[in-house]
Amino acid sequence: MTVNQSSAAMVAFDPAEHEPGNLYKLMVGTIVPRPIAWVSTVDANGVRNLAPFSFFTGVCANPPVIAFCPVNRGNPAPGMPLRKDTLRNIHETGEFVVNIVPERLAAQMNVTSADVPADVDEFELAGLTPVPGVMVGAPRVAESPVHMECKLLQMVEVSPGPLGGNIVLGEVVRFHVRHDLLTNYRIDPDKLDAVGRMAGATYSRTRDRFELERPK
Amino acid sequence: MTVNQSSAAMVAFDPAEHEPGNLYKLMVGTIVPRPIAWVSTVDANGVRNLAPFSFFTGVCANPPVIAFCPVNRGNPAPGMPLRKDTLRNIHETGEFVVNIVPERLAAQMNVTSADVPADVDEFELAGLTPVPGVMVGAPRVAESPVHMECKLLQMVEVSPGPLGGNIVLGEVVRFHVRHDLLTNYRIDPDKLDAVGRMAGATYSRTRDRFELERPK
Repeated sequence: MTVNQSSAAMVAFDPAEHEPGNLYKLMVGTIVPRPIAWVSTVDANGVRNLAPFSFFTGVCANPPVIAFCPVNRGNPAPGMPLRKDTLRNIHETGEFVVNIVPERLAAQMNVTSADVPADVDEFELAGLTPVPGVMVGAPRVAESPVHMECKLLQMVEVSPGPLGGNIVLGEVVRFHVRHDLLTNYRIDPDKLDAVGRMAGATYSRTRDRFELERPK
Repeated sequence: MTVNQSSAAMVAFDPAEHEPGNLYKLMVGTIVPRPIAWVSTVDANGVRNLAPFSFFTGVCANPPVIAFCPVNRGNPAPGMPLRKDTLRNIHETGEFVVNIVPERLAAQMNVTSADVPADVDEFELAGLTPVPGVMVGAPRVAESPVHMECKLLQMVEVSPGPLGGNIVLGEVVRFHVRHDLLTNYRIDPDKLDAVGRMAGATYSRTRDRFELERPK
């Protein structure tokens, strides 16, 4: 760790000199607040899976594409693979659903973040209701106010090791939005009440907002 | 627009039946709150550029990789290209810096979101101080508390049209974090005071938070 002379208050980190787990802490502490993709899938045997991912972003609207990045486990328990079940299921089926998490579902979302064996149905584990997709075989979370049914466009392995990463690119083939949230394609942020991810065990609400008109 | 019979309160949107501009509204209204990559670059002539992007995510920590997705302009003014200057500069130089935006810099960040000609220096436009990168030729924003110096890994054109998208994957080759934010790689969210992007002209603060311990 070296103090940067050109700006005395800054500490510089050369990634080659720090553990990936510590670099991960820097990333999740500074890339905030992060939207949460609560991703539902089924495996080849029809077992449902549901897990949250906060390395998640929109990509473009023409066509509508989103991406999320499941990070490999850093230090998996014996018998637990490095790669998450969600990734394997999407590899097998080419389909998934992104559900959005309002604060009232945060505790149930958190239940689905547990590292459980692949044959556990996280809908049952968290007491959630699966609703069939219209365009995909993956189920939607009935309790969630927004579902994006997605077809896999491309899956990229960025690096294979512990805390290595993968990019899942999906085209949204159907949006579902709870009726009362909508006014001519605009979403009411208070009614959506989405939560964002911060570092560690911390989440951010979206109720404390301000406006800045974009310059012409 | 059809009401989904299996869940009476939901409205379904088939992307084929809606304008990309309206699908974009659905995406930026539901994928919230989004972290902001305030990206600084230089072009081949050394002209500095600075612009905010909220389709931004971490990818992995081993090695540290981030991604951001500049969306093509939807309806550019005459003489303005579809693709943003940031993308062209990174294509030319292979380098960029992601700066993080605390609320006290939000107004200056907003100034840099204007569609100005490529020869305008957004550091000067917004009254910000450029600091040289240590590992890259792109400048850092001295006023920002976090800088990630990045080398381009890959640039992917997802779709070429208006509101089409691009993915810029960068490896972080140097992190800089303001000293008082750090405790053993953990970032103090109140001292960082990052803002998130919502739809339209709306931003979210990160001061209203809660904790959920991850299940074992």
